[in-house]
Amino acid sequence: MPPNQLFQYSVVSALMDGVAETGITISDFLKHGDHGLGTFRHMVGEMIILDGTIYEMKVDGSVTALDDTACAEQTAPFAMITQFQPTTTAKKQTPSKESLTETLSQLLPGTKNHYVAFRVEGTFKAVTVRTVGGQETPGESLAELGKRQASHSFNDIKGTIIGFRSPAFMQGISVAGDHLHFLAANRKSGGHVLSIEGDGDLEISAAAITAVNLQLPNGDEAYNQAKLARDDDGIAAVEG
Amino acid sequence: MPPNQLFQYSVVSALMDGVAETGITISDFLKHGDHGLGTFRHMVGEMIILDGTIYEMKVDGSVTALDDTACAEQTAPFAMITQFQPTTTAKKQTPSKESLTETLSQLLPGTKNHYVAFRVEGTFKAVTVRTVGGQETPGESLAELGKRQASHSFNDIKGTIIGFRSPAFMQGISVAGDHLHFLAANRKSGGHVLSIEGDGDLEISAAAITAVNLQLPNGDEAYNQAKLARDDDGIAAVEG
Repeated sequence: MPPNQLFQYSVVSALMDGVAETGITISDFLKHGDHGLGTFRHMVGEMIILDGTIYEMKVDGSVTALDDTACAEQTAPFAMITQFQPTTTAKKQTPSKESLTETLSQLLPGTKNHYVAFRVEGTFKAVTVRTVGGQETPGESLAELGKRQASHSFNDIKGTIIGFRSPAFMQGISVAGDHLHFLAANRKSGGHVLSIEGDGDLEISAAAITAVNLQLPNGDEAYNQAKLARDDDGIAAVEG
Repeated sequence: MPPNQLFQYSVVSALMDGVAETGITISDFLKHGDHGLGTFRHMVGEMIILDGTIYEMKVDGSVTALDDTACAEQTAPFAMITQFQPTTTAKKQTPSKESLTETLSQLLPGTKNHYVAFRVEGTFKAVTVRTVGGQETPGESLAELGKRQASHSFNDIKGTIIGFRSPAFMQGISVAGDHLHFLAANRKSGGHVLSIEGDGDLEISAAAITAVNLQLPNGDEAYNQAKLARDDDGIAAVEG
């Protein structure tokens, strides 16, 4: 795929409806880029793709890089990926997630109706993440999983955030606003970012995305029957 | 583009917000397929693409096939296209638009959360269409244009309907439900279909679409600043 195009498998509303029994094979998914995030079959853990390597960050705190065999076997019910080629970079004091949002808007003005792929690199004073533990029963919704997600805080930690910003009008298809996953430099911890506290400059790189390739699940009976109603509050509660 | 993938330029909410000053060049757009619909710069007229030929159906009732020169110059602020390869066909009594909707659901069960491309061929007892006349001031919304759209009814007319069905959760991005444009066999009349009355069997062909390529406007200041709020009632009033 050309750089800075988005490939997305399925829609966030499907996760909200618990559609996570099957999905795209990871090896097929990785053909579309080197920078991404998502979740795995049955919503077991958080996915982060960093420089083309895919990691599974589980609720017990473990992080695994998936090898070729795992990539051929594992599937993702929802995931986003791009061939990331930053068009802008900056070293900036980034005391909070909100200040990161502001910095991105300054770096890429006029993109509120586009997607943005971004990456943040550096040493954080604190990062708080959550990881989902997976469905306990088939079809359990992401909102239910959110109620028993594990939250971890890391202090003075070096690492990388991989993120996507999605436009407001794509809510339900993607996650409107900024969606960030974190992976520590030692590759031993990470998760879906709830908050960050910066410590000195962080290196932020970003690119706007105007081409979106959306792959809807095919031959997935749970998807076919799902309501897929937009649930703003539900998405904010688990993806905010 | 592989068959039965959707390429869409911009989003319907942008038309609702009056974003129609520029767009994709028709010749670029036509690279993505042979079956489509949309509108032209300033929302002047209705677009239909039939077997790779693009026609402009204007409010004065005229129909023009665009030649290569016109395709290189003209732009579309919103349009959808596919390389149509029907996977199912049927000859069916189709007394109304509602019965067409039912027939499509029978022909392609389990596709309520997918797109569908379809084509209807035959002699219609009656077809009522509307055509939009174009913006009178820059940025005029589609809802405003709808108030002075021209409506025409044709009786005992042979022709073709080109249509797309879009899933409910894509409302605002596409037009949720069935969206049909009609062109008479003599290529002298047509428009956006408001109602049909079948006369004997009509030939219906269709294919489900699971891959969606959405191209968002790039470098279009009006798009960048548009609200793009989902307006269900507004869309239903002009696109229903």
